[in-house]
Amino acid sequence: MNLKIAVLPGDGIGPEVIAQAKKALYAIGEVYNHEFVFEEALMGAIAIDKTGKPLPEQTLNLCLNTDAVLFGAIGDPKYDNNPNAKVRPEQGLLKLRKELGLFANIRPIKPYKSLIDASPLKREIIEGADFTIFRELTGGAYFGAKTLNEEGTHASDLCEYSEEEIARIAHLAFKSAQNRRKKLTMVDKANVLETSRLWRKVVQKVGEEYKDVILDFLFVDNAAMQLILNPKQFDVILTENLFGDILSDEASVITGSIGLLASASLGEKNALFEPIHGSYPQVKGKNIANPIASILSAAMLLEHFGLFKEANVIYKAVEKAIEFKVVTIDLKADSKFGTNEVGEFVSNFI
Amino acid sequence: MNLKIAVLPGDGIGPEVIAQAKKALYAIGEVYNHEFVFEEALMGAIAIDKTGKPLPEQTLNLCLNTDAVLFGAIGDPKYDNNPNAKVRPEQGLLKLRKELGLFANIRPIKPYKSLIDASPLKREIIEGADFTIFRELTGGAYFGAKTLNEEGTHASDLCEYSEEEIARIAHLAFKSAQNRRKKLTMVDKANVLETSRLWRKVVQKVGEEYKDVILDFLFVDNAAMQLILNPKQFDVILTENLFGDILSDEASVITGSIGLLASASLGEKNALFEPIHGSYPQVKGKNIANPIASILSAAMLLEHFGLFKEANVIYKAVEKAIEFKVVTIDLKADSKFGTNEVGEFVSNFI
Ligand SMILES: CC(C)[C@H](C(=O)O)[C@@H](O)C(=O)O
Ligand SMILES: CC(C)[C@H](C(=O)O)[C@@H](O)C(=O)O
Repeated sequence: MNLKIAVLPGDGIGPEVIAQAKKALYAIGEVYNHEFVFEEALMGAIAIDKTGKPLPEQTLNLCLNTDAVLFGAIGDPKYDNNPNAKVRPEQGLLKLRKELGLFANIRPIKPYKSLIDASPLKREIIEGADFTIFRELTGGAYFGAKTLNEEGTHASDLCEYSEEEIARIAHLAFKSAQNRRKKLTMVDKANVLETSRLWRKVVQKVGEEYKDVILDFLFVDNAAMQLILNPKQFDVILTENLFGDILSDEASVITGSIGLLASASLGEKNALFEPIHGSYPQVKGKNIANPIASILSAAMLLEHFGLFKEANVIYKAVEKAIEFKVVTIDLKADSKFGTNEVGEFVSNFI
Repeated sequence: MNLKIAVLPGDGIGPEVIAQAKKALYAIGEVYNHEFVFEEALMGAIAIDKTGKPLPEQTLNLCLNTDAVLFGAIGDPKYDNNPNAKVRPEQGLLKLRKELGLFANIRPIKPYKSLIDASPLKREIIEGADFTIFRELTGGAYFGAKTLNEEGTHASDLCEYSEEEIARIAHLAFKSAQNRRKKLTMVDKANVLETSRLWRKVVQKVGEEYKDVILDFLFVDNAAMQLILNPKQFDVILTENLFGDILSDEASVITGSIGLLASASLGEKNALFEPIHGSYPQVKGKNIANPIASILSAAMLLEHFGLFKEANVIYKAVEKAIEFKVVTIDLKADSKFGTNEVGEFVSNFI
């Protein structure tokens, strides 16, 4: 297979971890005779520094015209603590998600056997947990109108959803549940929010086409608690953009480290793959960032193109790295291995 | 002291747990020579059933003219799964919060020594955790304009905040931090939301008046993760309404059961005290609901009126109940004690 892949390393630890994902893909290409052509482009704080824009035209055009996008991380504290900044790195990622129509963000959560004890949760709580979060990615408060009055004393964010936006991701989530344990949990705040009530109504309706899937509902406050009390109850979780952002980061604790979690963002025509961790600027350039999430996002990319055997080889290689404790310090405080060494191990194992 | 207390048992397990809180207050009144006069009123699904309104005028007037409100729980599944219901129980509580101007909801989180092992989190993670969440309670998406178009295919919720709304709760949170370990963590999503950027700006400004308090910022997704990874890092958490709703339910896992957590909702003139758990209709009337959160909300009421000695007696009595394992089944699966027995034990101990 020939694949043209746009690579956006982004900010902070993005470039370091992306380099390891590329290594893994190169190794797969060689062993299984695929040609992966990578083209790098700027996005985020680094793009602002070099071009003034968080998502330069060139980057957007590249992404619109490739088979897939491999993305690192975004964000820089110099913007976070300046509420008056007009341009911010995150705008680049949000615009890219919107322009590529990446409405479904899929985040699988499953602890590794040999890492069960790395979690702050007790073994009996997490052993056997295995679920996937479907987070809507191009709607909600992320994209609604924002206002700030002239005096800078009053602000607003609008959360909006339409039936179509909800239905299209609901179909994906139900289909995924059909291939899993046939349970879908919709998370919302329907006792307070109008958009949540629309979600509930549309998802109920879509659910009628998937009679073999059991549908239940949880309020987001309760869901945030249930994820920790009893994560095994979940199979597929479906939720809106902001709730999905919060719950998926929270759920990362089940696996012991957010440095292990990858995600796929899918649209009608385009697909982007990224670790769910952020730019983590504190450790940038120190060769201690965990590359596994980024490597796993490369595996999700392969799956997306039907290369299941190849994806499995990466999953196995990552399992081996974890089993042999070739991991970064987030997983083993006294580890001697860094970002590069973990990446090397994985690609050598392929 | 003479106190006139409005009692709103509400829905589900509300009446059962409120009864135990009243018992504790009666006992305190007798021993310490205070007169607590209780007046009951309707709110929630039960009020809709009996009057058509979730917050009848009479209830509102009573609450406006008492020293404090003791509230049970609200909500009924028959409304939750009907997205078309025009009147819903929660509207009663939201309206009451708004009309009483209860802008600050204060939720202390601290595990009991003898319950450390009841938490899904490992002992070493939670031992020593002790923090308080200040949740803004009368603004944000809870109270902004809501729309649903005529066809029922498009909905919106507006999240709004003004400088004054943010500043008044920020002052309370900073003052609380001054009396604690002098650290305030503001939780927001300032990399995406305009309201969050206003929060950050205003809180930074207010912080200049509290130079002895260390102020830091966390994005809400990261905060949801940090609460579980390392809850000991927190002292006072300050956040907006919806984030506070989610994070405080999540934080309840640290104590082992949401049935242990009380909250105070304060305004300029009024105060309301409630358990943070909801109506939990599944166990209504079974004498298995945990009354401790409700009893502790009565203790917070006493503290609010400067009755610290009396509040401490309740805290001690609850500790004893927990130590002697006179607890409900959420804390000890094979417990023989029910709601009533736990309440009796506590009030007898006073
Ligand atoms: C960087 C930020 C805008 C982003 C989000 O909130 O969507 C990130 O947290 C994520 O989850 O991908
Ligand atoms: C019942 C509901 C409206 C309420 C809220 O979301 O505020 C509850 O969850 C709470 O936390 O007090």
